[in-house]
Amino acid sequence: MVSTDPDALKTYGSSPNSYHPESPHSVVVHATSTEDVVKIVNVARKYRIPVVAYSGATSLEGHFSGEVPGSICLDLSGMDKIIDINEADGDLTCQSGARWEDINQALKDQGIPLFFPLDPGPGATIGGMIGTGCSGTNAVRYGTARAEWFLNVTVVLPNGRVIKTRRRARKSSAGIDTTKLFIGAEGTLGIVTEATLRLAPVVPTKVAMAQFPDVGHAVSAVQEILNTPHGPHIQCVELLDDHMMAAINAAGLVSKAYPVRDTLFFKLQGTPAAMKEAAGAVQKIVKAHGSDRFEFAQTDQEAAELWENRKYALTSTITSGGEDAKVWTTDVCVPVSKLPQLVYETKKDLAEANLRSTIVGHVGDGNFHALIIFKTDEELQRVSDAVHRLVHRAIAMDGTCTGEHGVGVGKKEYLVEELGVETVELMRTVKRAVDPLNIMNPTKLYPDPKDEDDKNSH
Amino acid sequence: MVSTDPDALKTYGSSPNSYHPESPHSVVVHATSTEDVVKIVNVARKYRIPVVAYSGATSLEGHFSGEVPGSICLDLSGMDKIIDINEADGDLTCQSGARWEDINQALKDQGIPLFFPLDPGPGATIGGMIGTGCSGTNAVRYGTARAEWFLNVTVVLPNGRVIKTRRRARKSSAGIDTTKLFIGAEGTLGIVTEATLRLAPVVPTKVAMAQFPDVGHAVSAVQEILNTPHGPHIQCVELLDDHMMAAINAAGLVSKAYPVRDTLFFKLQGTPAAMKEAAGAVQKIVKAHGSDRFEFAQTDQEAAELWENRKYALTSTITSGGEDAKVWTTDVCVPVSKLPQLVYETKKDLAEANLRSTIVGHVGDGNFHALIIFKTDEELQRVSDAVHRLVHRAIAMDGTCTGEHGVGVGKKEYLVEELGVETVELMRTVKRAVDPLNIMNPTKLYPDPKDEDDKNSH
Repeated sequence: MVSTDPDALKTYGSSPNSYHPESPHSVVVHATSTEDVVKIVNVARKYRIPVVAYSGATSLEGHFSGEVPGSICLDLSGMDKIIDINEADGDLTCQSGARWEDINQALKDQGIPLFFPLDPGPGATIGGMIGTGCSGTNAVRYGTARAEWFLNVTVVLPNGRVIKTRRRARKSSAGIDTTKLFIGAEGTLGIVTEATLRLAPVVPTKVAMAQFPDVGHAVSAVQEILNTPHGPHIQCVELLDDHMMAAINAAGLVSKAYPVRDTLFFKLQGTPAAMKEAAGAVQKIVKAHGSDRFEFAQTDQEAAELWENRKYALTSTITSGGEDAKVWTTDVCVPVSKLPQLVYETKKDLAEANLRSTIVGHVGDGNFHALIIFKTDEELQRVSDAVHRLVHRAIAMDGTCTGEHGVGVGKKEYLVEELGVETVELMRTVKRAVDPLNIMNPTKLYPDPKDEDDKNSH
Repeated sequence: MVSTDPDALKTYGSSPNSYHPESPHSVVVHATSTEDVVKIVNVARKYRIPVVAYSGATSLEGHFSGEVPGSICLDLSGMDKIIDINEADGDLTCQSGARWEDINQALKDQGIPLFFPLDPGPGATIGGMIGTGCSGTNAVRYGTARAEWFLNVTVVLPNGRVIKTRRRARKSSAGIDTTKLFIGAEGTLGIVTEATLRLAPVVPTKVAMAQFPDVGHAVSAVQEILNTPHGPHIQCVELLDDHMMAAINAAGLVSKAYPVRDTLFFKLQGTPAAMKEAAGAVQKIVKAHGSDRFEFAQTDQEAAELWENRKYALTSTITSGGEDAKVWTTDVCVPVSKLPQLVYETKKDLAEANLRSTIVGHVGDGNFHALIIFKTDEELQRVSDAVHRLVHRAIAMDGTCTGEHGVGVGKKEYLVEELGVETVELMRTVKRAVDPLNIMNPTKLYPDPKDEDDKNSH
């Protein structure tokens, strides 16, 4: 199916909550099979037309906008079938347009006690998760898309050939890891059409919260917990700063208001006895790090409500901004020990720029999102300037411009500063070799050579 | 330091327990810094001389032999320094010649409750572990070198430039994962000189064994255990077949003989209450799968002795072969559900070929090693033929020719059959782009084009 309706083209070229310059595509083509994708790629190669993969549309960095005139938006969202589940082997094969939430729901519906642990934003698809090298709240326990959750991927290469990167064995040392070549490549090396996912056993969880005098105390508590034998029982540990707690209270999405302080939300996992032990250890450690309030959800309903405080972070922040408020989401990540300093300096900087914001962080990984509120174009410019400063600050602390959202068009300019000219040139070398005609999502990810010249001006 | 002593050249070109054709290098150069490596690579590039990295010398697939006349053996084993330990962040930076066992000993000596969980063969170095994409007995719990244990690597590229692939943040979505490009590349894309490793908390362990009527029952028990909430408490689960148990008894390295049956050795991990729960669950499940003997080591000493049965698998097999016996170690890996069939067919085939062997398997990953005994050249030929048949059998079961030992020269010929011509061609495309002069460990890993022509004759 092909569409050139102007409204559709605009929709397919832009992403909600993303504020990079966006351009519509020239045509949207809906694929339902790997063979469809081969046909499109062959046409694109013949006429030198860019192909931009599209599925969940949850990108925040302009990954799928139609920057190059004439580009094809290749909609894979209809390729959402689960092809095969091997319960005993703990793996599942699906098309790349499948959403992680639907996959986990299907497993649950079939009574299979396994799940896929990567949990990026709601609505994200397997293809997009591979493309951005995503993670989410579970990463502190299960790692990211760059770990071993993808046993293999089926890819249509720029030359139109279809490859499957590996077989179904849980591990292999058979040479260069071509699966990993596509994880984080943002659709610039080929179009992923299928993947075999490794699954993990569902483990019971409990939710707790602990409040702290400041971020420094919260972070040092997390570091200590993670280095004990109880560390593996931490499935998630999320930091919500005082502003975020205020926003949650104000939004009224939960039944009781919390003290407005820097807060950790824990999701512990384990069998009952293990969790009891871990909970005791966590409580002791957070207390030693200055927490005077530690609360365990006593029932499933309480746990669900407590976790919703975390889940509604973005909604609450938008609501707290008042009518017409929008939110820019940042994504830096630093070594965990640098996190408090980065948060303090950033909050100070945002206050000085007269910008309101909240912070939610995957604190076990050193990754946090400042959700910065704006309404006017003038405010948007101030936000954009503050984000630049934040990224440079994070890179100076041995960190990265993007912990989990990817590069797209939004982070291209920082790669040379973060990784060095030669590492970026290695990325470009691979790109030129695999996609010599530059038809796969051009203008994304790889910095323009001029960024190198600008490097010293940062 | 440079050496051209013929005995040294021979030693540096061969590996104990590896029986591929081996050739000496023309010169051995000992590097002590990244700058040394840059100098060597620049000389190699200028004169078009192959450079072959060498450190732990534990390879079983001929990774570092001097196949091309005139090649330089670059000995990195002196680059074994730990550069930096960040206990709070749980990471460590070292030179690539450092051995994993020395790193873990250094952490223990300093009272740091963390360890590096990849555990390939004794003596393996970080550089070799990266090159082969290694794993080991801990992989069922911690994954392999292809997971996220390497936060970054410092590499001397074929063009002589030095890159660091990433900064020290625990995660990053900043584009193509260039760290992963070097994991499993077997020194064909650059020479890794330093790496930042992520560490895991030390968790108490307990050792147990369970004996089964056959491999099928043992494997189905493991599959069920791994899919329960107790699965994450399995740090290792190793299969030793009846022949291996007989060899262990015969070698007399342990104080008591065990019944000669297919046996699982478990290493459980967790805090005391968690482990007690997990042990109960494991015992119940193995019993339901036909195990009539389950034994828990009651003391640390008992645990150490029980685990030694596993540790001495190779030694016991060599000893059981009698005077002058040698052992060829295979390395296929298949989806776990296929393992029993593969083991049965292989044991039958080896018996028909009149070859003696034992089996030890990382059964949670579907990876096993048949240790095949031989003495004469005629027997070696029969072993080699049997290994060919085993690899084809594993590939036909959706498996791989190498679970953890890598390709080297020994597995090149199987890659096209396993991965398809186009996936292999993608590997070669990357190789040609990064190392256009083919100076980095040439003749290893990438199949010769003639293998493609031979493909249909398999």
